[in-house]
Amino acid sequence: MRDLSPLQKARLNYNPKLAGALVKGIKNVKISFSGATSAVKDENEIKELFKDVYGQPIASFSDKGESLSMLNKNVGVILSGGQAPGGHNVIAGLYDALKQANSSNKLYGFLGGPSGIIDSEYIEFNDEFINEYRNTGGFDIIGSGRTKLETEEQFEKTLATCNALNISAIVIIGGDDSNTNACMLAQWLKAKNTGIQVIGCPKTIDGDLKNSQIEISFGFDTAAKTYSELVGNIQRDANSAKKYWHFIKLMGRSATHVGLEVALQTQPNIALISEEVEAKKQSLKSIVDYITDVVVKRANAGKNFGVALIPEGLIEFIPEMKTMISALNDILASLEKESSFVNAQNEEKYSIISAKLDNESAGVFNSLPSLIKAQLLMDRDPHGNVQVSKIETEKLLIEMVKANLKQRSDFKGKFSEQAHFFGYEGRCAAPSNFDADYCYSLGYNAFALISAGLSGYLSCIKNLTEPAANWKAGGVPLTMMMNMEKRHGKMKPVIQKALVDLNGPVFKEFETNREKYALEDCYVYPGAIQYFGPAEVCDCTTLTLQLEQKVAVQC
Amino acid sequence: MRDLSPLQKARLNYNPKLAGALVKGIKNVKISFSGATSAVKDENEIKELFKDVYGQPIASFSDKGESLSMLNKNVGVILSGGQAPGGHNVIAGLYDALKQANSSNKLYGFLGGPSGIIDSEYIEFNDEFINEYRNTGGFDIIGSGRTKLETEEQFEKTLATCNALNISAIVIIGGDDSNTNACMLAQWLKAKNTGIQVIGCPKTIDGDLKNSQIEISFGFDTAAKTYSELVGNIQRDANSAKKYWHFIKLMGRSATHVGLEVALQTQPNIALISEEVEAKKQSLKSIVDYITDVVVKRANAGKNFGVALIPEGLIEFIPEMKTMISALNDILASLEKESSFVNAQNEEKYSIISAKLDNESAGVFNSLPSLIKAQLLMDRDPHGNVQVSKIETEKLLIEMVKANLKQRSDFKGKFSEQAHFFGYEGRCAAPSNFDADYCYSLGYNAFALISAGLSGYLSCIKNLTEPAANWKAGGVPLTMMMNMEKRHGKMKPVIQKALVDLNGPVFKEFETNREKYALEDCYVYPGAIQYFGPAEVCDCTTLTLQLEQKVAVQC
Repeated sequence: MRDLSPLQKARLNYNPKLAGALVKGIKNVKISFSGATSAVKDENEIKELFKDVYGQPIASFSDKGESLSMLNKNVGVILSGGQAPGGHNVIAGLYDALKQANSSNKLYGFLGGPSGIIDSEYIEFNDEFINEYRNTGGFDIIGSGRTKLETEEQFEKTLATCNALNISAIVIIGGDDSNTNACMLAQWLKAKNTGIQVIGCPKTIDGDLKNSQIEISFGFDTAAKTYSELVGNIQRDANSAKKYWHFIKLMGRSATHVGLEVALQTQPNIALISEEVEAKKQSLKSIVDYITDVVVKRANAGKNFGVALIPEGLIEFIPEMKTMISALNDILASLEKESSFVNAQNEEKYSIISAKLDNESAGVFNSLPSLIKAQLLMDRDPHGNVQVSKIETEKLLIEMVKANLKQRSDFKGKFSEQAHFFGYEGRCAAPSNFDADYCYSLGYNAFALISAGLSGYLSCIKNLTEPAANWKAGGVPLTMMMNMEKRHGKMKPVIQKALVDLNGPVFKEFETNREKYALEDCYVYPGAIQYFGPAEVCDCTTLTLQLEQKVAVQC
Repeated sequence: MRDLSPLQKARLNYNPKLAGALVKGIKNVKISFSGATSAVKDENEIKELFKDVYGQPIASFSDKGESLSMLNKNVGVILSGGQAPGGHNVIAGLYDALKQANSSNKLYGFLGGPSGIIDSEYIEFNDEFINEYRNTGGFDIIGSGRTKLETEEQFEKTLATCNALNISAIVIIGGDDSNTNACMLAQWLKAKNTGIQVIGCPKTIDGDLKNSQIEISFGFDTAAKTYSELVGNIQRDANSAKKYWHFIKLMGRSATHVGLEVALQTQPNIALISEEVEAKKQSLKSIVDYITDVVVKRANAGKNFGVALIPEGLIEFIPEMKTMISALNDILASLEKESSFVNAQNEEKYSIISAKLDNESAGVFNSLPSLIKAQLLMDRDPHGNVQVSKIETEKLLIEMVKANLKQRSDFKGKFSEQAHFFGYEGRCAAPSNFDADYCYSLGYNAFALISAGLSGYLSCIKNLTEPAANWKAGGVPLTMMMNMEKRHGKMKPVIQKALVDLNGPVFKEFETNREKYALEDCYVYPGAIQYFGPAEVCDCTTLTLQLEQKVAVQC
């Protein structure tokens, strides 16, 4: 038995590179401010909801400006939502800055996500404990959770916990929703004059928490690289065995940044982009026809193999599927009360449902393979709704392509398939050097924002395609990224999600080349994430970021 | 668009380490021999079948002994069977030795596996071409195939191809079956006095081509490390989210060396070993009960999560399942002719089948979840038989554990599951330094055996847990590893497969610790394969090999 793998041991000793703007140490950082900010949309509503934290200026750290006050500050930190590689380094960076500022400062970690601060379940970090988690993947250091911090009662309890521990700032590491709630908490604490600050850190492997100020959320780099490794390996297998079509679903329900990055890294024959499907109002049939066409063309060129990438959220972006599923939810709610339905065999159930759907939805439902119909009826969520995340979209497409191929007189080849789903393999991978450095800087920077007395800010590190020595650091007011959106029928303030921009340089790069990818074999094999080799192998970030920043793509 | 990833570029320049015994170059290698050899079993039958290549001595290369003749030799090489990381380096090593011996020597690569030599489809290698494939994964350099070289007609065509190209030696890179056929070809060519030699190289990610002479087949190291990376990542996710049980099936139908190595690398809560299931005649029920017990014990300790490893071939090692599937094959053959069965709905089909099975098999069949019953009936192979490889064993176990938990009054926890299958992700991974070095040495050594005029030998590199400078090199007569086994009802000569030895040090290490793995969280996170870092991170081979060779485990 052993405790750690050789790589785990080696990575514990990695010294993450701190952003150039912070590298002189927390005591030497100076701050300056831009003018007042606004919101991306719905300024009046946002201002009304966040009276006390709205419109604050963007903060920048450098060696010019005001010094930070090194008051005694105890801080509490929370991991919120799904795992992303590098979360532990955010905490390590925060801890190091806090202790460098004043060795009597305390850092508390709330256990199991936001519920930890509400229920006052916590640990206090010390050197020995934190050192075991440096540069490691996972959120197991204190655990994470999905409780939403949003009610008055929760805020009251949070305040009580902070007062009991003499905590004067809370750092929330989370995605768009968690940071929206961080801002609500900041507003509440400020309105009550508690003096307790709230700072957010941008986390999500999906890469959809980004905007004019935030270049990328942490974890995206490592997760996309891990999936690229696997997709590349499978491509090499496809290209060696020359007998399988691999349909690979990639985690990510609301945006396809991961799928697009992996597509650019590996150059597969097919990569579906949910945002394009929605924008072009593509039907399931048209998607299946597109895939079938590629399969047929390749077969006619003697290639009975290929690789297709499918975004996890695809189904929810196909208008007719969305309509059908929503109708199905209503129908099932009433049918579940009828014993004649409940006791029926599957095939009978399908007929009953089909008869109750309108023509268009019935057509869509009937076009689905029985495996998928069965999945739609099984395992509904606690509200009785179809669990879209349980639908095996990769198998749905395989079955429909198979059926389609039988109708195609121009298809003379063979079609044998393999289905894959990658998600959990990447969320907790050990962070790449980029994510290790970026996260450490985000955490360190969060303490600089705390020292500057700020609240309602998101920790912000910029210039990320350059070496860390050139990275800028600062803070962005959370309200600046917000607008009003409908959630469960109500208008709510939320941080605007960044979907794939179909006119942006990343999608354009893919669009320009995808026909070539489809028919020729342009496979690239990224291989495993490297930590110790040449900089171009170990330290470059994603193609997405390089293309977005219009720097010459270096690696 | 790009052609190569940064890692691909960097790896092209890696200089694989040649075994110490060969490092002075092909022209300076000397050969010596042990006494005559025998077969592992059935000596008389093997001797009779392989009259002209039976009993040859073991060959060793060093700087003492006879010099090799540097005659002009053209060689043909074949990749046979499933992909394994490092195959390209076997060819690169062979090419380099052949050109160093005599720059006018030619190396031909036969396309698409053994059928390439039969049909005379080939390329001639040159520097530029071979340089593009150094240290890369996959078998795409010339492709592979599963044609078995075994008939007189195939041998005649092979001879014709060799004569046409003036080829005097064939190198077959393959697993146990391919090397058995290599030996048949060697015998045939020698009996006919053709002067054409045949040399094998031991390939398979399954790790079951090993014996007193062959320490390990190539590809096992990289594949097991790639799966370990993924399993470790998933464990970190399980241990962070603390809400899922992950059931992970690992490729490998006949032996569980991969599963056992991954279990030692990652220390999961459960790892099933097919050889143990067979030896202890475990029933499906007893396996499900064992898993359920672990789930319940962990839940009662507040841990509603875990990771279980399932070998792909499990079902075929459960005696009652084997019996039931074999009965099912017979029953389905006749039922498929009855339209009342063919047109029946699934549930009816299950009743019809169940009525025709004997009591024990009916009990097993009826205990299966309907998903699995459906898989047994769908997609049969060309002979009409159930395709065991298509059965989702990981889902079978999940469904049965779920059903079991409902009966357990002592279970108060939650059970949410995720199913995974890893196979294609590892077969074509870029070779680890170990596999890159080992394969290069195997190929280089194959040409040394050819230069020594030998035929019917397997290329052999030993001492593999030591640094490459201490690796020994030589050749083992293929007949030495053979015995007679029943295949499709007939006794045939085959290379004996190495299954997991339940009394060996590797299984014992696992057995000693598995209860601890089950209940405590002993997860180890191996991370991605590294190529450039410290030796203990980059150059160590598997724990299996370290334990088998009883060296102090170094990494």
